[in-house]
Amino acid sequence: MIDYLPGLLVLRMAALAACVVFASGALNVAAAEVAVGPKAKNFKLANGMDVVVIPDRRAPVVTHMVWYRVGSADEAPGSSGIAHFLEHLMFKGTEKIPPGEFSKIIAANGGQDNAFTSQDATAYFQRVSKENLPLVMEIEADRMANLRLDEKSVLTERDVILEERRSRVDNDPSSILNEQLMAALYQSHPYGIPVIGWRHEIAELDRSDALSFYSKYYAPNNAILVVAGDVDADEVKALAEKTYAKVKKNGKITTRARPKEPPHQAGVRLTLEDPRAGKATLQRLYIAPSYASAKEGEAEALDMLMKIAASGTTSRLYKKLVVEQKKAASAGGWFSGTGLDSGRLGFAIVVGGKTPIEDVERAMDDVIEEIKDKGVTQKELDRAREAYIADLVYSSDSQTRLAQRYGWAMATGRSVEAVEAWPERLKKVTVEDVNKVARTYFDLKQSATGYLLPTEKKATKSADDTRNGKS
Amino acid sequence: MIDYLPGLLVLRMAALAACVVFASGALNVAAAEVAVGPKAKNFKLANGMDVVVIPDRRAPVVTHMVWYRVGSADEAPGSSGIAHFLEHLMFKGTEKIPPGEFSKIIAANGGQDNAFTSQDATAYFQRVSKENLPLVMEIEADRMANLRLDEKSVLTERDVILEERRSRVDNDPSSILNEQLMAALYQSHPYGIPVIGWRHEIAELDRSDALSFYSKYYAPNNAILVVAGDVDADEVKALAEKTYAKVKKNGKITTRARPKEPPHQAGVRLTLEDPRAGKATLQRLYIAPSYASAKEGEAEALDMLMKIAASGTTSRLYKKLVVEQKKAASAGGWFSGTGLDSGRLGFAIVVGGKTPIEDVERAMDDVIEEIKDKGVTQKELDRAREAYIADLVYSSDSQTRLAQRYGWAMATGRSVEAVEAWPERLKKVTVEDVNKVARTYFDLKQSATGYLLPTEKKATKSADDTRNGKS
Repeated sequence: MIDYLPGLLVLRMAALAACVVFASGALNVAAAEVAVGPKAKNFKLANGMDVVVIPDRRAPVVTHMVWYRVGSADEAPGSSGIAHFLEHLMFKGTEKIPPGEFSKIIAANGGQDNAFTSQDATAYFQRVSKENLPLVMEIEADRMANLRLDEKSVLTERDVILEERRSRVDNDPSSILNEQLMAALYQSHPYGIPVIGWRHEIAELDRSDALSFYSKYYAPNNAILVVAGDVDADEVKALAEKTYAKVKKNGKITTRARPKEPPHQAGVRLTLEDPRAGKATLQRLYIAPSYASAKEGEAEALDMLMKIAASGTTSRLYKKLVVEQKKAASAGGWFSGTGLDSGRLGFAIVVGGKTPIEDVERAMDDVIEEIKDKGVTQKELDRAREAYIADLVYSSDSQTRLAQRYGWAMATGRSVEAVEAWPERLKKVTVEDVNKVARTYFDLKQSATGYLLPTEKKATKSADDTRNGKS
Repeated sequence: MIDYLPGLLVLRMAALAACVVFASGALNVAAAEVAVGPKAKNFKLANGMDVVVIPDRRAPVVTHMVWYRVGSADEAPGSSGIAHFLEHLMFKGTEKIPPGEFSKIIAANGGQDNAFTSQDATAYFQRVSKENLPLVMEIEADRMANLRLDEKSVLTERDVILEERRSRVDNDPSSILNEQLMAALYQSHPYGIPVIGWRHEIAELDRSDALSFYSKYYAPNNAILVVAGDVDADEVKALAEKTYAKVKKNGKITTRARPKEPPHQAGVRLTLEDPRAGKATLQRLYIAPSYASAKEGEAEALDMLMKIAASGTTSRLYKKLVVEQKKAASAGGWFSGTGLDSGRLGFAIVVGGKTPIEDVERAMDDVIEEIKDKGVTQKELDRAREAYIADLVYSSDSQTRLAQRYGWAMATGRSVEAVEAWPERLKKVTVEDVNKVARTYFDLKQSATGYLLPTEKKATKSADDTRNGKS
């Protein structure tokens, strides 16, 4: 709640501002525990709730998370934003906890709490000292079933969210570009609809929408408890029996099924002109598989591919566009592999100096085409893999990231075992695997390309702006 | 069933092949009865079914139509094509009528029958001699409530529809372009999903999908009976009391509510390259209001605007691009004003000779910008209005078109009175009204532009194809 912005939206916006940060963020979430990390234990409560415990004895603190297998892509048509709205409203209180007191209780006990909504999952986090774990589990289990909402506070919170949308999307040309690009990229799948929701739909959401979404999706058999820290599985199990295990399961929870994206016959392009934009920027998104949807080994190969192609200052894209050609002020790319139904390959480039944006795009495409035509080298793959694993080891130091990694996997239908076997699968990726996914998924037909151009404010738009990708 | 292709799809494809035909088709449907035409009477049955009777005594024949207020835009996400699939299955029979006999009975009695599915309505038509009207009403009322479907024939029909999709869309580059363009144009509203359905979703439809769609939407209180021909309202009423009035109403029918389209921040573009394409063609679509959604007078002004700008050989577009500049082999445009939630302005141009398609687009935009900047003239408006009314008078000669006009209006929430007052509203349109809608709705941000380029088949796609609107 302290940072109550929807997660994927945060990631997406980070991708625009600093795509390297995003790429690394994606790693942390998608990647598995490496050899050096602690091993997780998992079990199910009688009511169907999954529990994952990750021992981490370095300090007497714990990270407690509850993940729900529901996100913005599960919203009914016309109700965009309801998943995120409900996430806000989860802080309004229950019979036992007065409105607004949830975070105060955590803070009064020296802890921090947080929540986020993404396309596929909604999660609530707390970081507290070990002795406060029972308290946190009690109040989190309480709001899983006993949320109380009054009309007035719901409407007040709706205004908060409309303001959040205004400041984070509507006032930020990069965010608008990304939102428009996502909407253009997906023809049918709800990933094209923004996590925060369309403004006109947020404005219509009310208490009954929130409560019906809550009763449909918030239940122990649609949730995953992840506890990382100075505890063991037995302790967590005993506490869970006293708290979450008492929440009734919902017999109506079913496997999620969203419309599948049809194969595209043509890539799409759009140009956003905005006097508020700082520098011209270019974004390209391709639909690709995700860890949850890919054929064996493909997602790992895509991670290696994007590491080599575009992630970081040693990537081909950065070296070519920023260092050698000096056409870009920054250039990066990432593989978004955490989706339940599909993933994305993404590129974001800030144009350097006076280079025409079309030239920058051509230079980016040259890098991509070279990989498709000639492939990557064994040396590049080895270096990428090493760097990737180093990132994993480093990020495993963060208890929060460690817990997130398991939570995210479990929320999108992957298992603890799949997470932990991940480094082994990564080691098996070959140069040919990387080249094959490059040839398959760098497919312009499955892509959307967007330009953001800073412009002077002008009264009438000239017809000449409508061509050459400027529309 | 003889022509069982979904109506809007027919119209849409007609727009590609011969947009003048489309524009005239749109007129016939959207426009109202002019002074010379017969006046309709309408009433409601006790079970909520609307009835419209249009006397036309020229010959002893009648046109009988049942319109359902349901179309492809009412399909649940992931079930695209079910409205059209059910339309096919409606010919499979009831307890009284054996499978496949419906059309044979009509034909044996010297009649013709037909059906279509569009985004907003599904309709079943018969044209028979006057004395066969009781028979037609009896069997049409029967299949409103008593459809029988067996698994096997449902699966056989599904194959028929997959083949229909293959031949009419997948094998026709112009149709693919239009389908991709519609998908790119709409970010949220289901108008972006093809009426015939996405192939992978059609392939999953089954008997239970069809029956649940049928029981949800097919009911007298969601239907309109339109009878045009050698009858009067009393005769039709007496027959309807014996047939349709006996069908039970469905208490669960509600007003249709689809997701509203958010305001777009950038127009989209796409290029389809296809070796099967004959000539390079350009399409542009803009989201605009429809007769059902527009502010008073706007839709009428849009009809006049598109008549002046792009409909027919005397339009500005045709004269400039085809006659004067010889850049286009054909050029036309239309206003699709019949939608329940919104309409579209459309342009379709077949490139002439070796003119680069970008030049053709620029020439089209020059025509549009000139209208936005300098407006149309009183003389143009007068001439357009006269031609429009002449079209109406002419098309009112067709009993089918006359009946369609009322049926379409009633199916999208408009009244018989609105249809009949239409010529009066048309007469009130001023030059300023036309100029205002031109400035408002020729907005590239709310548009999608598509190129269809014939190409040689080649092994690898060059990176250079990805820019300048070619993606």
